[in-house]
Amino acid sequence: MVIVMSPAATDEDIAHVVERVESTGGQAFVSKGVNRAIIGLIGDLESFHHLNLRTLRGVATVHRISDPYKLVSRQHHPQRSTVWVGPADHQVPIGPDTFTFIAGPCAVESAEQTVSAARMAASAGATLLRGGAYKPRTSPYAFQGLGVEGLEILRSVGLSTGLPVVTEVVDVRDVETVASHVDMLQIGTRNMANFGLLQEVGQSGKPVLLKRGMNSTIEEWLMAAEYIAQRGNLDIVLCERGIRTFEPTTRNTLDISAVPLAQTLSHLPVIVDPSHAAGRKDLVVPLTRAAIAVGADGVIVDVHPDPETALCDGPQALLGSDLRELAQAVRQLPKVMGRHDAGAVARAR
Amino acid sequence: MVIVMSPAATDEDIAHVVERVESTGGQAFVSKGVNRAIIGLIGDLESFHHLNLRTLRGVATVHRISDPYKLVSRQHHPQRSTVWVGPADHQVPIGPDTFTFIAGPCAVESAEQTVSAARMAASAGATLLRGGAYKPRTSPYAFQGLGVEGLEILRSVGLSTGLPVVTEVVDVRDVETVASHVDMLQIGTRNMANFGLLQEVGQSGKPVLLKRGMNSTIEEWLMAAEYIAQRGNLDIVLCERGIRTFEPTTRNTLDISAVPLAQTLSHLPVIVDPSHAAGRKDLVVPLTRAAIAVGADGVIVDVHPDPETALCDGPQALLGSDLRELAQAVRQLPKVMGRHDAGAVARAR
Amino acid sequence: MVIVMSPAATDEDIAHVVERVESTGGQAFVSKGVNRAIIGLIGDLESFHHLNLRTLRGVATVHRISDPYKLVSRQHHPQRSTVWVGPADHQVPIGPDTFTFIAGPCAVESAEQTVSAARMAASAGATLLRGGAYKPRTSPYAFQGLGVEGLEILRSVGLSTGLPVVTEVVDVRDVETVASHVDMLQIGTRNMANFGLLQEVGQSGKPVLLKRGMNSTIEEWLMAAEYIAQRGNLDIVLCERGIRTFEPTTRNTLDISAVPLAQTLSHLPVIVDPSHAAGRKDLVVPLTRAAIAVGADGVIVDVHPDPETALCDGPQALLGSDLRELAQAVRQLPKVMGRHDAGAVARAR
Amino acid sequence: MVIVMSPAATDEDIAHVVERVESTGGQAFVSKGVNRAIIGLIGDLESFHHLNLRTLRGVATVHRISDPYKLVSRQHHPQRSTVWVGPADHQVPIGPDTFTFIAGPCAVESAEQTVSAARMAASAGATLLRGGAYKPRTSPYAFQGLGVEGLEILRSVGLSTGLPVVTEVVDVRDVETVASHVDMLQIGTRNMANFGLLQEVGQSGKPVLLKRGMNSTIEEWLMAAEYIAQRGNLDIVLCERGIRTFEPTTRNTLDISAVPLAQTLSHLPVIVDPSHAAGRKDLVVPLTRAAIAVGADGVIVDVHPDPETALCDGPQALLGSDLRELAQAVRQLPKVMGRHDAGAVARAR
Repeated sequence: MVIVMSPAATDEDIAHVVERVESTGGQAFVSKGVNRAIIGLIGDLESFHHLNLRTLRGVATVHRISDPYKLVSRQHHPQRSTVWVGPADHQVPIGPDTFTFIAGPCAVESAEQTVSAARMAASAGATLLRGGAYKPRTSPYAFQGLGVEGLEILRSVGLSTGLPVVTEVVDVRDVETVASHVDMLQIGTRNMANFGLLQEVGQSGKPVLLKRGMNSTIEEWLMAAEYIAQRGNLDIVLCERGIRTFEPTTRNTLDISAVPLAQTLSHLPVIVDPSHAAGRKDLVVPLTRAAIAVGADGVIVDVHPDPETALCDGPQALLGSDLRELAQAVRQLPKVMGRHDAGAVARAR
Repeated sequence: MVIVMSPAATDEDIAHVVERVESTGGQAFVSKGVNRAIIGLIGDLESFHHLNLRTLRGVATVHRISDPYKLVSRQHHPQRSTVWVGPADHQVPIGPDTFTFIAGPCAVESAEQTVSAARMAASAGATLLRGGAYKPRTSPYAFQGLGVEGLEILRSVGLSTGLPVVTEVVDVRDVETVASHVDMLQIGTRNMANFGLLQEVGQSGKPVLLKRGMNSTIEEWLMAAEYIAQRGNLDIVLCERGIRTFEPTTRNTLDISAVPLAQTLSHLPVIVDPSHAAGRKDLVVPLTRAAIAVGADGVIVDVHPDPETALCDGPQALLGSDLRELAQAVRQLPKVMGRHDAGAVARAR
Repeated sequence: MVIVMSPAATDEDIAHVVERVESTGGQAFVSKGVNRAIIGLIGDLESFHHLNLRTLRGVATVHRISDPYKLVSRQHHPQRSTVWVGPADHQVPIGPDTFTFIAGPCAVESAEQTVSAARMAASAGATLLRGGAYKPRTSPYAFQGLGVEGLEILRSVGLSTGLPVVTEVVDVRDVETVASHVDMLQIGTRNMANFGLLQEVGQSGKPVLLKRGMNSTIEEWLMAAEYIAQRGNLDIVLCERGIRTFEPTTRNTLDISAVPLAQTLSHLPVIVDPSHAAGRKDLVVPLTRAAIAVGADGVIVDVHPDPETALCDGPQALLGSDLRELAQAVRQLPKVMGRHDAGAVARAR
Repeated sequence: MVIVMSPAATDEDIAHVVERVESTGGQAFVSKGVNRAIIGLIGDLESFHHLNLRTLRGVATVHRISDPYKLVSRQHHPQRSTVWVGPADHQVPIGPDTFTFIAGPCAVESAEQTVSAARMAASAGATLLRGGAYKPRTSPYAFQGLGVEGLEILRSVGLSTGLPVVTEVVDVRDVETVASHVDMLQIGTRNMANFGLLQEVGQSGKPVLLKRGMNSTIEEWLMAAEYIAQRGNLDIVLCERGIRTFEPTTRNTLDISAVPLAQTLSHLPVIVDPSHAAGRKDLVVPLTRAAIAVGADGVIVDVHPDPETALCDGPQALLGSDLRELAQAVRQLPKVMGRHDAGAVARAR
């Protein structure tokens, strides 16, 4: 940490800062300039937090210089991680050597619709099935998901198609039930800073797909992952899904740079959700191509057998015809990037 | 709702839209222009949602023209509401005729600190006490609050000072306990879209202080209020606390226009949190003045007897000396705006 | 300046940084920590810029710690400045002791409309007249202003009403002509970073009203003022007019905190434009009140005798009826804030 | 255009709107609903603009439903355009069938540095040379470019390397001189809304590279292109270079979705600037890959023989070693996307 003193700071102010830092067992190095002094701190970041350095007299600004996350940081874990998803006899990897295509309906509406969507997904090359049983909706009057019934459908469709299943959990009270039905738990964008929920999925024993908050910085996203990791669960996959900006043409702005940045800062795998980022189906294929080319470890896409009747996010779901173009991109581009197909690498152990 | 067809839309496309709308019992009025057609819809908004109008062939854009919220809308409730906070024998109003000053420590750290802060608050003119027992923190390594012990302290300090108490609740499992200790429940900015929590406080029987999400539009904020209202609780106070923008000098950008706008769109009271918006104590007094002058129904401010040792948000907490200036603004300006002091209007019933 | 080295930086890397800094005549103080080193730099900021410190091997981040602007900074000029606008025999102040109300039509459309608008402005208490002869419009098909004819109208209406005139200049080639017709030159939000234009008005001999870019940080705004000041013109008034955010209800988000912040960082006067910030006339009065209460040195407001026929920004122009409410706020609130009416303080010299 | 009346609008209000619309020769279709009326307008958009429909009594909102730009719109020009850059005997295409790699130094500092950078660019596969002679800098104390001397260097290096040259113009008074030295004029992000400059380059007779304003919507960007086109110049290439958001890790957020969106809305070619978007050289290669895969018609990249001494934007300039990786991406990926190398397609006519 570096403390910059204001030009008006006195020697007493500087001495007081040094004294406070040393009271926690830290060390303080003072460099006096023509106009002002700079104090470099060495020691335990956590203990410095409690000092409220910014409130001390004469302090102008405080700069943090090391990552505030530890378990998920790449600093002490330079090798990028692979997360394996699925039952012991069929585990699908998400990581640096493979490309993983996840697809399925935004919301589970019925067994028939889910089976159709899962078949669409599988035939396009998906190796994991997504589907929502609990839907966080902006309007209390919108469809909120089938709940446990939806989980049962997902489990049975996952078994019949051989695709491990990922689904969103929105309430701490549901974590156990959801974890007992599916293979991977998703934390949605609106819950990225729901710290109680993060801690709960950190204890669930299942891998977690952590979407970036639409208003969150990359650092806050990694801090959210740290909450999960701190409870003993390091099977975390990060998912970039767009941030909120002033541009009105798309629902959110896909922050494609966040993929290589998160991979540099953290050892966790990073995938992209082009469907929710754009909110329009005509962008799903080009954004999937961009995601693969930028180095993402996978994508997660909405598909629906009949978007016209979808109860949730119909406008962004791909139909069979669009899906063929997507399937081609997913077959061709990861190879160019030196990646193996996750399905081919899936393992039984 | 208004549907704008693309120039390439055929008569069949138009007929299909009309047919879908009429299938829900709605009416569709088609206006054909030189380049394209416009279809006006009359009927039940909710049923139109399920049509996925944007996915129909030939549809270019869909414009919603009525408010998506109902219970909190001012459209059917033109009179602005007053919310009363506190025990039956001492209820403090928040509403259009009064100005309510809420103050207290960001986090409850000990009985002594809370008593001191409450006395500071009261002597500066506060009529409600704020204080946090559960703190949502970006870092899992930061102080997370005293929990139930903090609630006990708040209850006892509230009783001894005669100030009704508002505190934040962050987990659905805590709502009942928190509601049994304090007079008003706060939903923080990170939980504005935690829909399960909104529904739970909607059933708590206590008034709710709903902070705007730092990334939320005014419409989404009112939709969140609608979630609470839908469970039968209309004792909701909205709190503007800044939104996330590109400007780095302040922690967030106080959206002062949101106060008159929310008051125009909704009948609920609207207050301002200048401490968290700016994140710097030198702005608390000017922003409080601006809030009063723009027409806010109250403000909520962080105070701490010793910011240097505060376990949370020390840099923005006011000391006794700054507080005098604040107290003066709060005594003087609301009168100019034609408002009564909430304390003087508090009632026993 | 403070340089934070990466944990992987070697002693050679550190030595190379020190050597580069010393090559410019600066001093470098190295603090070695457990994980990494910090280097504090003392010397001429400008010469450090040419070092591209961020490209040196082993450098993690570079933190600037002093203001990049000088002439407009309050650091070496603690007294806040007053700018006087108008001919020698009638100069109106904008500064810390007064409150200055500027009003007029967004665009000059005709002599009649401008006279009417100027009378509306004067009767509501305005002491300076605004009006646009050159309009920067997003669409090339929109009304672009009357040009020189508009300047002639402004000059004659200014003379007949006794109100000094401020008008926008958008092209470097027009600066001389505009400066010969009016009393103050306005740089609009879209031209805040048009550095050639800033330099030109810096040589014009007339005071400048510098609007904040809708996408500019406060620091960039002060740097733009520095461009003007550098050419010898320190008669600069800053104008906050809203920034671009995700909130769609208002055209821009008025950053009310920018007023006290700019006044803390710079000695220049700061006013507010509530008309363009919100883009809706129902917010002009509450935002004007907020501006006065937060400590602004003035406001600039659109008025039009007949908004229904306005060629530019009709929806935000105030009619006579709304104007009465504004006039009352402008008469009453500045007094509460300890400010004199600028008109009463205008001087002849 | 669609006008939505407020629920409180009277029949007289509706009749007044219809009358105003018909006074311009337009047609108005009224649909009355249970709560409110909707009025669809058919006719000339420009004439409706002068009506200030939003100010009419009873009007709630006004929705525009056709593109505000015409000449650059794809609506009446479905075929995507190719722009040819360079002297008659060596014209390089930028368009839908090719991929064009543009590279060079951010700023021209000397003949030697420019020759070295041009050679680096050419050896990595670039077919156009970029380089700045006029630099718009946030600080008046930063290097502002060599001006005419820089143009002379660019011309001579362009001739000696056989690469057509693109350079930025920042002042209307320089357009003619710049156009006489180089093959393509660049409008930088800060000047996207400098309408006088847009009109001037529209008359220059040279193709124009139009960067998106860092705070501009896609629609505003296309309106800026319309300003150029309106002066008779349709040789415009759009360049996405990142927008300003809350994310601090990168200088700007590359809006990768803007590429396919702009290509859908306009027939003009669209390229990407990964160097300025990110402001960090470690992202240039992944973002270039993403740009190619999303369907961009080219990229423009900063290179410098010695970033450590660069007078401008050193931290983002690629060195020879990084450039090899970029060269490989540029050779390999466009082929996968079905694109030809622009150099191979360059024509003499």
